[in-house]
Parts: sequence; structure tokens; C-alpha cells
Amino acid sequence: MIERSLRWGMIGGGRTGQVGYKHRTGATRDGTYRLIAGAFDLDAERGKDFGINLGVEDSRCYADYQTLIKEEAKLEDGVEVVSIATPNFTHFEITKACLEAGLHVICEKPLFFTVAECDEVRELAEKKNLIVGVTYGFTGHPLVRQMAAMVEKGMLGDIRIIDMQYSHGFNAGDDVGASEALKWRTNPKTAGSTFVLGDIGTHLYYLSEVVLPKLKIEKLLCDRTAFIKTRAPLEDHATVLMHYNNGARARLWVSSVNAGNMGSQRYRFVGSKASIEWTDSRPDQLIYEIQGEPNQILHHGMPYLEDESLAVDRMGALHTEGLGDSWANIYLWIAQAIDAKNRGDEAFLKTHKYPGIEAGTEGVRWLDNCVRSADLNSVWVNYK
Amino acid sequence: MIERSLRWGMIGGGRTGQVGYKHRTGATRDGTYRLIAGAFDLDAERGKDFGINLGVEDSRCYADYQTLIKEEAKLEDGVEVVSIATPNFTHFEITKACLEAGLHVICEKPLFFTVAECDEVRELAEKKNLIVGVTYGFTGHPLVRQMAAMVEKGMLGDIRIIDMQYSHGFNAGDDVGASEALKWRTNPKTAGSTFVLGDIGTHLYYLSEVVLPKLKIEKLLCDRTAFIKTRAPLEDHATVLMHYNNGARARLWVSSVNAGNMGSQRYRFVGSKASIEWTDSRPDQLIYEIQGEPNQILHHGMPYLEDESLAVDRMGALHTEGLGDSWANIYLWIAQAIDAKNRGDEAFLKTHKYPGIEAGTEGVRWLDNCVRSADLNSVWVNYK
Amino acid sequence: MIERSLRWGMIGGGRTGQVGYKHRTGATRDGTYRLIAGAFDLDAERGKDFGINLGVEDSRCYADYQTLIKEEAKLEDGVEVVSIATPNFTHFEITKACLEAGLHVICEKPLFFTVAECDEVRELAEKKNLIVGVTYGFTGHPLVRQMAAMVEKGMLGDIRIIDMQYSHGFNAGDDVGASEALKWRTNPKTAGSTFVLGDIGTHLYYLSEVVLPKLKIEKLLCDRTAFIKTRAPLEDHATVLMHYNNGARARLWVSSVNAGNMGSQRYRFVGSKASIEWTDSRPDQLIYEIQGEPNQILHHGMPYLEDESLAVDRMGALHTEGLGDSWANIYLWIAQAIDAKNRGDEAFLKTHKYPGIEAGTEGVRWLDNCVRSADLNSVWVNYK
Amino acid sequence: MIERSLRWGMIGGGRTGQVGYKHRTGATRDGTYRLIAGAFDLDAERGKDFGINLGVEDSRCYADYQTLIKEEAKLEDGVEVVSIATPNFTHFEITKACLEAGLHVICEKPLFFTVAECDEVRELAEKKNLIVGVTYGFTGHPLVRQMAAMVEKGMLGDIRIIDMQYSHGFNAGDDVGASEALKWRTNPKTAGSTFVLGDIGTHLYYLSEVVLPKLKIEKLLCDRTAFIKTRAPLEDHATVLMHYNNGARARLWVSSVNAGNMGSQRYRFVGSKASIEWTDSRPDQLIYEIQGEPNQILHHGMPYLEDESLAVDRMGALHTEGLGDSWANIYLWIAQAIDAKNRGDEAFLKTHKYPGIEAGTEGVRWLDNCVRSADLNSVWVNYK
Repeated sequence: MIERSLRWGMIGGGRTGQVGYKHRTGATRDGTYRLIAGAFDLDAERGKDFGINLGVEDSRCYADYQTLIKEEAKLEDGVEVVSIATPNFTHFEITKACLEAGLHVICEKPLFFTVAECDEVRELAEKKNLIVGVTYGFTGHPLVRQMAAMVEKGMLGDIRIIDMQYSHGFNAGDDVGASEALKWRTNPKTAGSTFVLGDIGTHLYYLSEVVLPKLKIEKLLCDRTAFIKTRAPLEDHATVLMHYNNGARARLWVSSVNAGNMGSQRYRFVGSKASIEWTDSRPDQLIYEIQGEPNQILHHGMPYLEDESLAVDRMGALHTEGLGDSWANIYLWIAQAIDAKNRGDEAFLKTHKYPGIEAGTEGVRWLDNCVRSADLNSVWVNYK
Repeated sequence: MIERSLRWGMIGGGRTGQVGYKHRTGATRDGTYRLIAGAFDLDAERGKDFGINLGVEDSRCYADYQTLIKEEAKLEDGVEVVSIATPNFTHFEITKACLEAGLHVICEKPLFFTVAECDEVRELAEKKNLIVGVTYGFTGHPLVRQMAAMVEKGMLGDIRIIDMQYSHGFNAGDDVGASEALKWRTNPKTAGSTFVLGDIGTHLYYLSEVVLPKLKIEKLLCDRTAFIKTRAPLEDHATVLMHYNNGARARLWVSSVNAGNMGSQRYRFVGSKASIEWTDSRPDQLIYEIQGEPNQILHHGMPYLEDESLAVDRMGALHTEGLGDSWANIYLWIAQAIDAKNRGDEAFLKTHKYPGIEAGTEGVRWLDNCVRSADLNSVWVNYK
Repeated sequence: MIERSLRWGMIGGGRTGQVGYKHRTGATRDGTYRLIAGAFDLDAERGKDFGINLGVEDSRCYADYQTLIKEEAKLEDGVEVVSIATPNFTHFEITKACLEAGLHVICEKPLFFTVAECDEVRELAEKKNLIVGVTYGFTGHPLVRQMAAMVEKGMLGDIRIIDMQYSHGFNAGDDVGASEALKWRTNPKTAGSTFVLGDIGTHLYYLSEVVLPKLKIEKLLCDRTAFIKTRAPLEDHATVLMHYNNGARARLWVSSVNAGNMGSQRYRFVGSKASIEWTDSRPDQLIYEIQGEPNQILHHGMPYLEDESLAVDRMGALHTEGLGDSWANIYLWIAQAIDAKNRGDEAFLKTHKYPGIEAGTEGVRWLDNCVRSADLNSVWVNYK
Repeated sequence: MIERSLRWGMIGGGRTGQVGYKHRTGATRDGTYRLIAGAFDLDAERGKDFGINLGVEDSRCYADYQTLIKEEAKLEDGVEVVSIATPNFTHFEITKACLEAGLHVICEKPLFFTVAECDEVRELAEKKNLIVGVTYGFTGHPLVRQMAAMVEKGMLGDIRIIDMQYSHGFNAGDDVGASEALKWRTNPKTAGSTFVLGDIGTHLYYLSEVVLPKLKIEKLLCDRTAFIKTRAPLEDHATVLMHYNNGARARLWVSSVNAGNMGSQRYRFVGSKASIEWTDSRPDQLIYEIQGEPNQILHHGMPYLEDESLAVDRMGALHTEGLGDSWANIYLWIAQAIDAKNRGDEAFLKTHKYPGIEAGTEGVRWLDNCVRSADLNSVWVNYK
């Protein structure tokens, strides 16, 4: 926990989408953040009504992010950190404006459109002494930390195979009458160079980085397509193959036309001694399979787990976790980074684990490589 | 949602137990309650330190509940509702004191020791125009509402068989070095006339009331034992059989010596046409089995569900719920009752569903009947 | 394996039921039995056609069991063992006739109507030096042997709780247009004093005897009913509670009106240290839960299993078993008993495990106690 | 069923491997085949002992396949069909020799080393009027037929995505002390140009052909490696991507170093309307997911299934199937083909479904394309 609540504002995340609730339930749970301002909606009236309903004062529900930044700067207790939950194409300009105004930023993934933009923001944040957090919301589950600890301790042996999947069916039909959220996600101008790769594939990639921090991709092949033609040139289905510097091989499947599937992610990390398997749809269980021994099911919150996992467990072994609990950890870890940054505690920041600007940058870099391969007709490309 | 945040205090729920976090994460999520006072711990210093850490002002972290009631009454913005998360034997006196002081109450289950106590409190609450809520924390899941709606619409046909289970293994070993929480739960003076029947069995019973409000128990048989002898005369294992007024038959298994089991509840409601089955360990799925058709798995948040379920869904179909989301609904529903009571909206209260004093009373009545049967050597008793 | 194929005949098991295939696929797999005669059907013509189709010679497809016994006795290579797969009420007379004629018998469960009949047949079999096997067809799975071995070696500690269930939904509708098989099963004259208790409940009871041979029932309570009224006084749903001589407690649920359920059996044996759980619907996996450790899943055929299990594994770890594999073991074990009896090897018979006349007798005794309790209005009765 | 039992011999399948039992339990179950001769083992004495134990006459347990062919030809009741369960490199010569001698052949997969060999054998079989069956042993499960029927009837809509996996962990360790079976499988001279692709990957490919007979591969990419270096140039892990003529895309994962995994196959066929998913580890269930509706679980043997599935169901809905039941169907279907060929019933053969020489050929062709891609450094190749 940190000393005091952070004064927090939101840009986007209003009534028309689902994402705002995840930010709020993640941020407010521990009293770590206090929501005091917002520019929640492109429709200023609707946004104001929404904010007031959340307990934000009338006068601090702003028409747009520019006004929020300007007006809050005038207040003694103005916001100090802002979350950005807007369409991808606005992330870069809003983040820069917030940082310029001295505000910490928490931004949705995929972070920006290019690695160059990421680099520019990283330099700006460093100059301004500010944190940029990225809401890879699934990696706050305690058993994700457990997987990372088990890999680090060599419990799997040498990593050989990585199999990852995030493939739901919610966009299996065509886009006639599509939601606003789907429209901007399938338009290159607002979504960037990818649809499902950026929208959900980056979750897979970031989680693999958390679990396997030492592995580096050497070669990558991306095969993508749009089964619903109006989504081209963006993709609603993709397979990515990867070769790592230690000889490991990965496959990643990302899709939103996997008809009937409710969206479960699935991760399997195979080593020379054992494998682990986890799905976000049952986040409280981890399958641990040592070759030649009975398969094991590990439960969150149990004393036999690694300390790294138990330290971040909120509910205790008897009780189920949900995605909200994972978001709460992500928001807490970012708060701890902000707090340390505010206190100038760089030593803490050196070892503190949270999804920051590096994680955001690597996600964009991975998308870059995917697109490069796909555009060359799905050939192998050297990772760069 | 309600107009404004409720001014909220906690009695108990401090550092030494797990239950406090559930209350707080349930209460604060929507901004419905604002935690402003507490008597969190029998150890006053520890309690103060704990409260301050939660953002409660130093001066409003009290040494005991009597002081809390007295001092808060002096404040213009004193608490208006108090949650009680203390050992069972204190529920009755604290609840009465709070009601006498004009405070709404939210109390842990099992509510009190006797039905007479429940009746006394009900009358007091009525006289004072106050709400008493009971934290049956598992019944806030949207698919519990779905089950109730399906039964009401006759989708199962006539109810025939009810099979319920809450049986974990966390107390399979003896009680040498037991936690404080386990000590008071296994002592009749502090726990009342039951251990696992009251502690976890009441969850099963209340959920069955929510799903099957029209069924009335006619006869009941309870067979209980303490496999760890030091827990006698209380039980760590019990089986309860029930006959209902419509001819339905139920069995219920409650245990804390079910070695290795992680605590899953399991509910199966069998009708003449179809069955439904749900477990709190996978709260986002409901199994629906129509005889002669393929078995179905229903997912929370999907448009094919009943309105009653969708109305209380927080996370949306793609994302997992946890126990915290269920508690958030329970706390919200109680807040709505308090708000209506404050506004004098008895019409709303007539149809509003939340676990109130009646639910608490029926839980105690059920325990009474269980103990009566068990004490007569596990015979059938007429339910009264 | 045994020296030579047994000359085998079938009584019943013809075209109109499903049970015949199980007998044949169990018996013929290892070349242990050779089907050379049969009285397959009450309809002699249909039975003959059926038998010829199975490769039985025209002349050895008999009109009734009496003729089979008489004619086969005249042949040098006449049958030496006969399987009885006819309705319950005929088991006793056919078994006696076969034994009198010097034939070994393999009979369906429940064996007979009364313990007295069982005793009479046991004496007759002893006098004639013949084997009576009973087709408890689920207990041939290798992981059933594994469970017995784990209990014997103390891996569970003291046995405390037994939870068993065999409850499908195939008779959830009324009996208008019921099959012949269902008609005789719900008629006391042809089925005996029980429907589902005898038809499927005895499988649960026998398996519990195999796994827990040392436990003796002291008290029993049976609560049964017929949800479809035309089945009364027999039951289509029953719950049985049992107390054992070591303090263990069991509950058993048997039903054929469990709408939508596909018939899975479920067994859980809980000890002071650990529990095991098994279902016939996934016979190749055994769940092993040691309190405080990760839950384990054991797979059939793996070297870490007990020798008793590996010795009877047919398919090997990579490949699925089905019910036919279990029947094949049951038939083999009975063949080994017959072979030993033929050779006069009583030493082998003393330790050889197979479902014989004792198992059949204990099944009938258990049904007797269930009915006695149920008829006294579902009270506790001392087991006798 | 067919008129009379086939006179059957086995080459290979002796004591040292597991495969022989599968052939025998598949072949003998219905009385369709009668095992009367064999050359079971390279070690003639061991083979003879093995055969006698199976009930084969001493004089018909031969030292090698050449002798079997020669001697059986002299007998009036000599074998008419022979199963070949020997290492891959011997399939071609033995098959040719059998066909030349006028015997029908049932051969293990992968059939031969090259498509040219397959073509030669096809011509020979046609000339001789004989059947060549291939034991793709997993495709006899009734729910595989169900999947094919559902696709054919358009219940999935247009096929878009195929995801298949057969990846166990039994060879995760190095090959020191490897079994004979593993040795020949990892040696190009005895195994051909692949290890796991041929050994288990062909099962995936053939099942996809059965379910999706109309789809044709246009492009393929195979990425393979040997994590255990001594297996190179053969592979113990491979990923194959495929593009089909209708735009569908597939991924196939085959591995024997998937540590801890017990070998489950997994198949998912995704269409524009719905998906189906099946695993051989639970062969009696089929998951059917229509986008926007509750997920369904279909059970084998239930009346709601397609006729094609029910027609080949052996056990009935209440009872589990195992791999043996699938093999029994495969062997039966081949027997029906042999019977039709013997009777000259080419009309029957035109529509009769069984894994014959075409299936074997296509499996080899698929391996050819995989190897070609892999050898070009895992690039896309046009399928030919």
C-alpha cells in the first residue's frame, strides 16, 4: 500500500463502453486512487451526467481532455494521475499532453501506433520524472506471478515450447450494425495497423514476457486474415510463430471469429522437465505437469505457492478471484511506482514489477514485427 | 445506484481475519458506501493502526463499538450504517445497540443464536425504521439470479431433488495451534449451537431459499459429528435431509474435514423437465440439462440469459467474476434497501430482493431444526 | 490368462436389450470364453436368429434355458459356464438349475431377491464345486484397484466420509410407452423389492466394498420415493446414510429421475490425510487430494501407480479405456476363478479377487436393510 | 456385420509392443475376424509362445512373414487377410508380398515412405482385387462420424479455422535407454522422413479429412525441430500451418516432448456459424458452440445425434467408450470392405467409408509436403 490516495482522473471510459468499470473497480478498491475528475465522453453532457453519478463533482466533469488538463492544473488538489481509456489513435497525443502538464499516465493497450512514438514518450516521461503505466489487465492474477517464479527457479527446466491463445467468437458475424467500439477497432485510422493482434494479442505477448523475461524472439512469422472482408486490411484471425534465442518455439493464436468460444485465454509453457498451463477463465488454478508424475492442480492462496504469488493474493484460498482482482493489483503496482517516483525512490523502481512504458513499447514492437511478416506474405522475419 | 454515498462504519473485520476485505471491497466499489469510522479490533491500538491505513481518520478509529456509537452520534456527518464482522456471540448485542442508536446494520451470518433474538431485533428495526442486512456473500452472483428466474418461469418443471454441498478440507487436521478464528468457531459459547452448519451451511440454505422461494420444508433430519473430537459437541461434518411441501427432497452436505477439497460449493436443482447446476468456484457458468437434449453451459453476461441476471452483471460476458463482485451486489442491494427506508419507500421494499432480517431469521430457524434433529439422535423432525 | 478357452453359453442378453453386448465384449476379448450356445430370447425364433448372427451354430441356439441345459449336457463339448442376463426374478431358478447341471454361473446383479436364496445357492455351489460370478461391471477398471491399494496402504489415513452417487435422468419422464426393460424393473414381481437401489445402487455399494473391505456398516437409513407414481411401491430416487464400525459416515444417492444427467457415477473417499475421487465417466483418471498439497490427477497405466492397478491395465497410459475394458477384466477374473476351481486350486481362490457369490449376497443384504429402513418410514436401522 | 468370420493373421504386434492388443481387441470383438496364424515377433520362439497363448495353433505361429505367406497358402482354410504391425520401413515389402499372395492387407500408419510406393500398391491391389486398410484407430469413434455429418449438413456454416493437436510428453527426456519402439521411430532408415509427424501427426490429418472431405490444402508450412538432438534430422516437435481452397486456415501441433501431457488429441473446427471441439481423451462428448447461444455438450448414443453416428455406436449413451471401441469399428468397416470386394460389390464400396489405400496415400502425401517445407527452412510450399 502507499501513504495516501492518489488524486485521479479519467479520460474516456464512459457509459458507452465496458472498459471504464474495470479501471474504476481496479483503482478504487484499496483506497489507492480517488476519482475526482474526468472527461468521460466525447458527448460532454452524457459524460457529465456519467461522472456525477460516480460521485465526481459537477465542475470537474469536463467536456474534453484539454479542458481537464487546463482546469485541474489551476486547483490545489488537482489530479495527479490520469487514466486514458479512449480509442487507440488518441493515446499518443493525450499521453503527451498529460505528461507535458506534469501528470502521471495510465494508458490502455496497445499503447501507441509506432515504436518511435513510444520512444518519444519514454524520453518525455523521464524528463518530467513521471510514470506511464499500461493496463495489461490480466497479469495481476497471483498465479501469473506464480508462473514467473516457477520458471525463474528452474522448476520447468529449459523452456522449449510456448502455446498461447486468445480467440473468442464475438465477432464471428459480419459488421452490419456493429458497435462503435468494433467500428474504430476495425478501421486502420483509429486502430492502427492491427485489429485482434493489438486488441487482444498484446495481452498474450505481455504475459509471456512476464513469465519468461529472459527469452528473446529471434524470428517471427505472422499469418493473418480477415474472414469478414470489411475488416481488411486489418485481421480478425492470426497465427504467429516465434523462435527464441534459447531454441524455444512458440505459437500464438488470436482471433475474434472463433464462433461460440467465450474468450478464454490459454497459456502453456513447456520445459524440459515440466509444463504449466493457465487460463484466465479459471484464474485461481494452475496446472503443473511434471513428466512421469501425477498432474498437479495448484490453487491460488495456498501456502505451498511461491512467496511472489502469495504476496499479491487478495481473496484467500477459499474464494474465487475475478478479473477485477487482477486489475486491482495492476493499479496498485502502478500506484506504488508513482509513489516511488514522487518520492524519488529509484532503487525501488529498479526492481518493482509493473507494466510500464517498456512493456507498452515492447508490445508495439511485437505488433510491428507481426505486421511486417504478414505484409511480406507471412514469411519469417528477423525480430527487430 | 443510489443518490449519495452512505456514511459507513465497521465493527470488527480487522487485520487478523480475512472477512474485512470482503466487506470493504463489496461496499466501496460503486462509491455506494464511504468508510469513515470503525472499531476494527479488540486490540484498540492495532485497530487504530489498521483503520488509519484504510484512510479512516485517526479520531474515528474507536477502541470499541460502544465508543463508536456514542462518538459518531455527536457528529453531524456521523455514520448511518454499520457492518458487524465479529464472532457470532456478539452479533445480537451489537446489533441491538446500533439499532437503538438509529443506525442501519449489516451483519455477518449466522445472524444470532435463537429465533427469539431474531424476532426481537426485527421488531426493534421496524420500530426504529431501520434495515438489517445479512452478508450471505455468495448470492450476489448474476447466475444465482438466473437460477431463480429459471425456476420461477417453470423451465425446470416441478422441483423434485435438491442437492447441495459446501465441504472443504481446511480443518481436516486437529486443532493444535488453531487460529483464533477457528477457536471461537468451535466453542459453543462463542459460536452458538453449531460449527460448520452455521458457518458455511447457512450459505447453502439461503441460496436454496433465493432459488426456490415457494418451497417449504416439512420434515428434516440432521446427522452430524465431530471427527476431531475436541470440536464436540459442535460438528465438523453434517448431512441434512429435507422433505418439502411439494414432495421435493433435498440433501445437503456440509463439512470442513473433506481433506484436500478447496471449498467448492455445489448446487443441483432437479425438476421434472430439466436440472441446473452451479458451483461458486466457477460462478460465471451455469449448467442447464434438459432431459433428452444436449447439455448446455450458460455464461454470465450473455444476451440469452434472463433479464434478472443481466441487470446485476458487472463484468460482461468476456470477463471473469470473483467473489468480490458478488459481495458488491449484496452490499449494493442492501444500500438500495437503506436508501428506500430512508426515503420511506415501502413499495420499493416490498419487491426489492436482498438478504435482510427475514433471511437471517430463517437461517437461524433452519439451524434450530438441524440441532433439534441431531440432538434426538438424528431422527426426522417436523420443521418449525 | 488361463490355459484354454471356456465353453460358454448365454441365457438372455438378446436383441432387445443393451446388456448382452457388454457380456460378449467382456468375455470374448482375450479368447478366454468361446460363445457356443445360447437361449438368448423369450422369443425363440428371434433368439435363434440373433445367435446365428453371433456365430453360434443353429442347433445350439435354444428356445429356453431348460433346453439349453438338457441338450448341452449331451454334448462332449457342451457349455461349462453360462451367463444369465435375464430379469431379476428369474435369476434364482436359472442359477440353481445351472448349478444342478454342473455348470458354472455368471449372473447379473442384483443377484436374487433374498439373502436366504443367496445362502441356498452358496451351499449348492460349494457342494457342486462350482463358481458363481456376479457382473458388477464397473469394478474392473484399473483405477478401482488403485483406490483399493491406496486405502490399504494407508495413503488416505483413517477413512471418515464416503460419498457415492449414481443418478441419471433417463427415467425422468413418465412410463407411458416404457420399454420392456423398464417395465419389469419397476414391477415388484419381476424386479424384487427395489428399482434403482437394486438396479444401479448395488454398483455403488459393491465398489465401496472393493475399496474399503475392512469397513462394516453398523447403522443405515434409507429415504426413498417414486416421483413417477406408477413406480410405487418401488423407488426411482433414494438417499441412503450409513454409519460404519470405525466411525466413518457415508451417503449414497441413487436416482433415475435426475433430469439431464447422463449417468455418471461419482465416488469420493475421504480420509484423515487425503481424499480420492473417481467417476466412471472418466475412468482413466483418479483425483488424489492430500490436504495442504496441490491436488493430483493420476492417470491409468502410469508407472507411479500401485502394482495392483498396473497388473490389470489393458490399454496403456496413452489410450482411453471404456466400460468394455472393465467388463473384460471382470470376465477374466471370473474365468481365473473357474479355472482354479476346475483345477482344485483353493489356495489361489482364497486370495483371488473377483465378484463372486459373497459379493452378490452382500448386495442383496444391503438392499434388505435399505428396504427395511424405508418401510419403517426412513428411520435408522441396525445393519443385519 | 458380415456373413462369416474372416480368417485372419498378424505380422508383428507381439509381446514387446502395445499395438498388438489394439489390433486384436478391435478385430475379434464382433466375431468378424478369427485369429488363426501369425508371425508375431522377430524372435521366432518368443513369437510362437506369444501366439500359442492367444489360442493360435503351434503350427501356425511362423518365424517370419515369408513363411506365413507360403505355408498358409497351402492350407484350405489359410488366412485371407493379414494385419501388419511392424516398423514403418517394412510396411511396403510386406504389403506387396501379401497382395501378391492374394491376401487382403490391414497396415499400420504411416503406410509407406513415398507416394510412389502408395501408387504402386494401389495398382497392385486393384489388379488383385484386394483391399488395403489402414489403422487410423481414432476415427472409429461415433462422435467423429457425428462431426462429419454436422459439417456436411452445414451446421457449422463455412469452415474457417481448424486447430488440431496431438502432443504428449512421453519422450520429453533424452533417449538413453530408449525402448526398441522409440529407437526405430527416431531413425530415418526405419521410420522414414519423420518421427512425430508420421507417428501421431497423420492421425490428426486423417481425422480432418474424414470431417472435412471437401477441403483441399493449397499451401502448407511446416516448422519442425528435435529438442532431443539425437533425434535429428527427424523431429520431436512440429507446427504445421495450412491454407485451404475455401480460404480456411489450419494449425496443427504435434509433439512428443510436451512434458507432462498425457497425450490428448484436441480438434476444433470453426465455422461461420458454430464450432465443434472433440478430444480422444473424452471420446463420448462433443462440444458444439453456436455463436450467441449456450454452449452444448453432445453425448454419444443419444437420439438427438445424427444417424451416421448412432449407426456405429456400440456402448449406448450411459456407458463409456474407449479406444478399443473405435478400433472395433475401424476393423469392422475394413471387414465390410473386404466382404464387399470378395462379393464383387463395387457399388457398396463406392460409398462405404473406411480408411483404405487412398487414406494411406494422402497421409504419405501430407508428410511429403511437410518435409519439403521444413527442409526449405520452414517456408510456405504449394501443396502437391
